[in-house]
Amino acid sequence: MRVPLEEIFMRRALSLAQRGYTAPNPMVGAVLVKDGRVVGEGYHRRAGMPHAEIEALRRAGENARGATLYVTLEPCSHWGRTPPCADALIEAGVRCVYAAMQDPNPLVAGKGFEKLREAGIEVQVGVLEERARQLNEIFVKYHTTGMPFVTAKAAMSLDGKTATHTGDSKWITDEPARRLVHRLRARHDAVMVGIGTVLRDDPLLTVRLPRMRAALHRLRVIVDSQLRCPEEAQVLRVEDSPTLIATTASASPEKISRLKERGIDVEVLPDEGGQVDLRALMQLLAQRGVTGVLCEGGGTLIAGLFAKRLVDKVVFFYAPRIIGGRAAPTAVEGEGAARIEECLWLDRVHWRRAGRDMVVQAYPVWEDD
Amino acid sequence: MRVPLEEIFMRRALSLAQRGYTAPNPMVGAVLVKDGRVVGEGYHRRAGMPHAEIEALRRAGENARGATLYVTLEPCSHWGRTPPCADALIEAGVRCVYAAMQDPNPLVAGKGFEKLREAGIEVQVGVLEERARQLNEIFVKYHTTGMPFVTAKAAMSLDGKTATHTGDSKWITDEPARRLVHRLRARHDAVMVGIGTVLRDDPLLTVRLPRMRAALHRLRVIVDSQLRCPEEAQVLRVEDSPTLIATTASASPEKISRLKERGIDVEVLPDEGGQVDLRALMQLLAQRGVTGVLCEGGGTLIAGLFAKRLVDKVVFFYAPRIIGGRAAPTAVEGEGAARIEECLWLDRVHWRRAGRDMVVQAYPVWEDD
Repeated sequence: MRVPLEEIFMRRALSLAQRGYTAPNPMVGAVLVKDGRVVGEGYHRRAGMPHAEIEALRRAGENARGATLYVTLEPCSHWGRTPPCADALIEAGVRCVYAAMQDPNPLVAGKGFEKLREAGIEVQVGVLEERARQLNEIFVKYHTTGMPFVTAKAAMSLDGKTATHTGDSKWITDEPARRLVHRLRARHDAVMVGIGTVLRDDPLLTVRLPRMRAALHRLRVIVDSQLRCPEEAQVLRVEDSPTLIATTASASPEKISRLKERGIDVEVLPDEGGQVDLRALMQLLAQRGVTGVLCEGGGTLIAGLFAKRLVDKVVFFYAPRIIGGRAAPTAVEGEGAARIEECLWLDRVHWRRAGRDMVVQAYPVWEDD
Repeated sequence: MRVPLEEIFMRRALSLAQRGYTAPNPMVGAVLVKDGRVVGEGYHRRAGMPHAEIEALRRAGENARGATLYVTLEPCSHWGRTPPCADALIEAGVRCVYAAMQDPNPLVAGKGFEKLREAGIEVQVGVLEERARQLNEIFVKYHTTGMPFVTAKAAMSLDGKTATHTGDSKWITDEPARRLVHRLRARHDAVMVGIGTVLRDDPLLTVRLPRMRAALHRLRVIVDSQLRCPEEAQVLRVEDSPTLIATTASASPEKISRLKERGIDVEVLPDEGGQVDLRALMQLLAQRGVTGVLCEGGGTLIAGLFAKRLVDKVVFFYAPRIIGGRAAPTAVEGEGAARIEECLWLDRVHWRRAGRDMVVQAYPVWEDD
């Protein structure tokens, strides 16, 4: 089977795009081709750093004139932290632009293409569009619905336990799986846990990636309805990363004050039966510009997200070991389904190895979808 | 890489062997080759039916003279339900025998080869031996240790639940996975469940395979320490398959009598804290000639087997769905490990698809191994 030339270059652009940890920006890759040869390429590394198109133009230099650009997302037309890419492409004399997809942000959608076309540049949209949409599933959801994309992550033994009955959970999975978790954290702009997980594991929830010069300061969110978080918890060290505690009116005002004085953001949210209203929390995060939330448990919080249909994606890790125990916690607790036919189906299920562990990613199919 | 000729024919023999459901006999495949061409092949279909070598000789007819035999197990030298294969091979004029492995039964081991060699037949042992040993892992364990090979099987949701909190478990996995379970049952000579599973699911535990003319009557074993099994349970219909109930001295003698009158085998075994001593049960089954036991749960029985180090293999199925629930049962219950480092590791882990479900098979690594 012959693969069209534009798909070959777009695949390269998609693969470049994946190197970036760009939240809340989209991941973008760009390849400039002239006379069948790549003359420049680039990707968006981090929010605030140059866009993919600008990197590619810089590498191509004078060779950009008359070249064709393959880019995974519509070039921007507006001034953000950097000048509009569309203008730079016009100025550099690019002749043709293949884009995988339009910018999903309704305020932008199509304006970049319009600007290019008005300048006489040929524009083709839709090459490997599905892959580009999946690559930026977080960005796409946020900009089309105004709500963050929520990924539920858990690591468990083959028999489905996320910890022993005594609460020990370090470490169920192996180093390669844990590295994948840090990459997942870096793809989302917020990492979330329930207070049970803080009390049990005292996690850092920072992004620790090898070969990454600058640390990525992702927002850490703790769902803590009764504000039980110990003041010495590692997750409260705001010099590592910013932290937001979502609590309810039952929280102690004195403790709230003390935490706020330390620079910790404590938000009192509406409650439902004493628990933080998770939809209200997601709306608050969206208002703060959070596009993607990685929820790392525990099982009670993840069950709460499922109950509210707030989960967009599931990423579960399975270690080749048996923990056992009727009282050992699992990835999704709460009440659960009463009958098998009421269970939640997942589709687009993808299994792969991570060292000696297995990881599955899949997407919930909500009945009204 | 060039694959040696003897491996090519032995692979064929191994693949033929796998078609049989031969418990308590081994699975055996045989290929007769003359002048580089296959002149006859066969496999052992069921206990009591002709051995693989005899099938291959029958197909080859006069072509067996001077041919080379590729066979997955040492040809037998003794009269069982059929005459010795070694004699038949000698009589047919086979010139050379490649066998994957020696018969593990200490009463037989090597005697078949000896007989062939004494008749002037060239014998080579060890081609693809490891695969042949795995193929007959049940038979090998039974004949080398005198204890049955125990496979722990469970079907669960991605979040590790084997039923909902109300006990509904029909059906977590899909048709292809369930067909695999029937093939697993057919590979073992006994299928075992705990009384909890009988009370919850009222299972049949028979072997239902498509395109199989004769039903395989596998022994059904119920671990029922207090003899709570309802007398109308489907598993007690001995016209389907034989049934053994393992109970303790706490069982009602009247109920035992009634069940025995119906042809159900009720065995009163030593107990440990009121529960059937599972090691004593395995010893009893071994004495009855049971080589392999497929334990299909529930989680309490499987946990008991793990606690006694009686599990030889794990086969777990994962359906792409979420059940949820703190109170929902899991594949391995009991107390479980207290610390992660005390968990049981599994090795030789093999994941594969079964329809839309995933299935993992793996082998426990006991610390003294």
